[in-house]
Amino acid sequence: MERLPGFRDFYPEPLPHVDVWSADARQYIFEKWRATARRYAFREYDGPPLEPLELFTTKSGEEIVGQLYNFADKGGRAIALRPEMTPTLARMVAAHERNYKKPIKWFALPQLFRYERQQKGRLREHFQLNADILGETDPAADAELIALLIDALRAFGLTAEDFVIRLSSRNAWHDFFQRGGGDPAQEYAFYQIVDKLEREAPEQSDQKLSALGFSLAAVNTFVEQGLPTAELQSILDNLAARGLRDFVRVDYRVIRGLAYYTGVVFEAFDRKGEFRALAGGGRYDNLIKLISGGKVTLPALGFGMGDVVLLELLKARGLLPAFDANVDVFVLVEDEALRAPSLKIIQDLRSSGLVVEYPLTPGKSDKQFKRAQELKAAFTARLEGETQVRIRNLKSREEVLVAIGEVAHHTVFKR
Amino acid sequence: MERLPGFRDFYPEPLPHVDVWSADARQYIFEKWRATARRYAFREYDGPPLEPLELFTTKSGEEIVGQLYNFADKGGRAIALRPEMTPTLARMVAAHERNYKKPIKWFALPQLFRYERQQKGRLREHFQLNADILGETDPAADAELIALLIDALRAFGLTAEDFVIRLSSRNAWHDFFQRGGGDPAQEYAFYQIVDKLEREAPEQSDQKLSALGFSLAAVNTFVEQGLPTAELQSILDNLAARGLRDFVRVDYRVIRGLAYYTGVVFEAFDRKGEFRALAGGGRYDNLIKLISGGKVTLPALGFGMGDVVLLELLKARGLLPAFDANVDVFVLVEDEALRAPSLKIIQDLRSSGLVVEYPLTPGKSDKQFKRAQELKAAFTARLEGETQVRIRNLKSREEVLVAIGEVAHHTVFKR
Repeated sequence: MERLPGFRDFYPEPLPHVDVWSADARQYIFEKWRATARRYAFREYDGPPLEPLELFTTKSGEEIVGQLYNFADKGGRAIALRPEMTPTLARMVAAHERNYKKPIKWFALPQLFRYERQQKGRLREHFQLNADILGETDPAADAELIALLIDALRAFGLTAEDFVIRLSSRNAWHDFFQRGGGDPAQEYAFYQIVDKLEREAPEQSDQKLSALGFSLAAVNTFVEQGLPTAELQSILDNLAARGLRDFVRVDYRVIRGLAYYTGVVFEAFDRKGEFRALAGGGRYDNLIKLISGGKVTLPALGFGMGDVVLLELLKARGLLPAFDANVDVFVLVEDEALRAPSLKIIQDLRSSGLVVEYPLTPGKSDKQFKRAQELKAAFTARLEGETQVRIRNLKSREEVLVAIGEVAHHTVFKR
Repeated sequence: MERLPGFRDFYPEPLPHVDVWSADARQYIFEKWRATARRYAFREYDGPPLEPLELFTTKSGEEIVGQLYNFADKGGRAIALRPEMTPTLARMVAAHERNYKKPIKWFALPQLFRYERQQKGRLREHFQLNADILGETDPAADAELIALLIDALRAFGLTAEDFVIRLSSRNAWHDFFQRGGGDPAQEYAFYQIVDKLEREAPEQSDQKLSALGFSLAAVNTFVEQGLPTAELQSILDNLAARGLRDFVRVDYRVIRGLAYYTGVVFEAFDRKGEFRALAGGGRYDNLIKLISGGKVTLPALGFGMGDVVLLELLKARGLLPAFDANVDVFVLVEDEALRAPSLKIIQDLRSSGLVVEYPLTPGKSDKQFKRAQELKAAFTARLEGETQVRIRNLKSREEVLVAIGEVAHHTVFKR
């Protein structure tokens, strides 16, 4: 029986196949994400993987349904597997915002879903680090969030040589559009053209821009000048004070496709431009109000970073560590008469926090030792008589003989 | 907008409402489960939350569909949100078992789903620790798995006063049934009666047993004698060698409802009998063969422990720690002229691994200090002039003055 197309199985390493995913690499990414968000004093939250379909159409319009993994449940409700976390966050914050001091700094590691026409290797789910700050309009919040994004990538050993944050602002484009005498009703259509500048033929972009009273030349000049607005300059200065200036550049070609962004927007890319965006985000100051039906007004901003592109980049840069069982001690049971006291040692070692493996059933000495080596155990331990344990460091080959009662907390295991 | 009935939102503490769940408590449980499974040298895996419906009906028959959260996807496939992890595990192991040395010891922390008629407070999802050993028939594997279950509960501070593993065996009941001359075709019907002994009126059980040629009195005598089979005795001896004998008792009333168990079965309960089962599991030696369509034969056993009953028990026993933001250092920015160097200190402290919070925007000194106290920060740090930082331990109230370049790695933060 096969798993569903577009979904992943996560196996422990070593992996059986190239088309199979590593549970260890996934957990490695989750742990780095979580630890970095915590250092920034972000708090973890989560919501259900299923939400009422309406939550997503309220935010993004009916068009989004075509991309959703949606269905009717047995009670006839219109349901969708969450395609992004922001609507759930907005719903949760709107319900209980009075309980939390502002600014609210929250993160989550959700699995997200979409249902697009199946293409080879195209996934229907991925995991994201989602981080958001709510209740603060000052660009200092934007800087704090972008600093977190930078450090969440640096946590994997990536440097300013590997990635860059392209920083932009809808406010800058709003001013440009106004100065050029654009029709306010067509402003979002204008943003959509800017969003596609890098993917569409110049003639096509120019034609579309002309229809709105603009020229590609003027747009290109604005992009090339790349003069930061006061708001963006404040963010750049803040990041410079942290020593993070090298990770960011103003790039007005970034505008983000989604309708709900209201100010600063940004995307993270690998410097060589080999991969899709590593992360993206921005301000959405009106969304909480929309989702809460006008009950709660809170300025907000956030980003999402996916696991799939990140993993591709880490592999390409050789930054994924080797994963194994991390066995600290392999207990050899060579004499079955000593199995009971060996089990006691195993229990004591595990209780002290060490990862311990041993042969469940009788086996030859050399096979047991070979298994310890395969598992890359740091030590073997073997009872000698009933009162002493021989501990061997498999790297240095040093051996010590330890009294049975002292094994669990022996300094030999301190690393 | 409301979340779906039977689903949970997980908020950071302090919690706004009693009907809201704690993201911190959830993460606390996950970390203890994961750490314990790793100490036992179990490796983590995961599969998709969605599987083909057929995966579950193959294992449990068509009756299960009534309890599943199932639907047709846009491609017309019959899909279900996973109600348990074992079929996914069996599918994954069957696909790649040759790559992994036996015994395979794997664990997962899946979210599981069911769609029952909605009752007040009845959930449609929960999380489980799932741990399984595949490829070993010896009762030593059963003992290893039960020891893990015991330690996964002890990790939360629960003791032999708090919980007990009720150990049983389908083999013991098989022998009883055979000795009593039962009709092999009715053996599973007999197990179902035994499974309901504790919930049904004695007369009703007796009547049903009579129809199969047995009496409640004989069944009760067998239960009360509770003589361990050789297999169970071997498990008890193994656990005794580990010092875990007090956590287990033979109790033949446990037989587990599911059809696929083949040998040892067990359940964990709180000693006072206030809650539903904390965990349950057993041997399912034929399931991998069934799921793999006969391709792979592997003996197997496993257990699942849910988060909801565990959380209830931990609350009742006062064993949940207080959760907060775990802020190490709150950096006070009292002079806005010093914001830039303060940001540098914040960055350096975070880079050294500390959790750091600070006011994003200008604020009065006393309000900042109050916020540091609310967050239960361990220290405050404040620039004095441009070269020195005053660090205050908020518990001991001790203060030290540190050169700005030495802040991040200062011994004052070593705890």
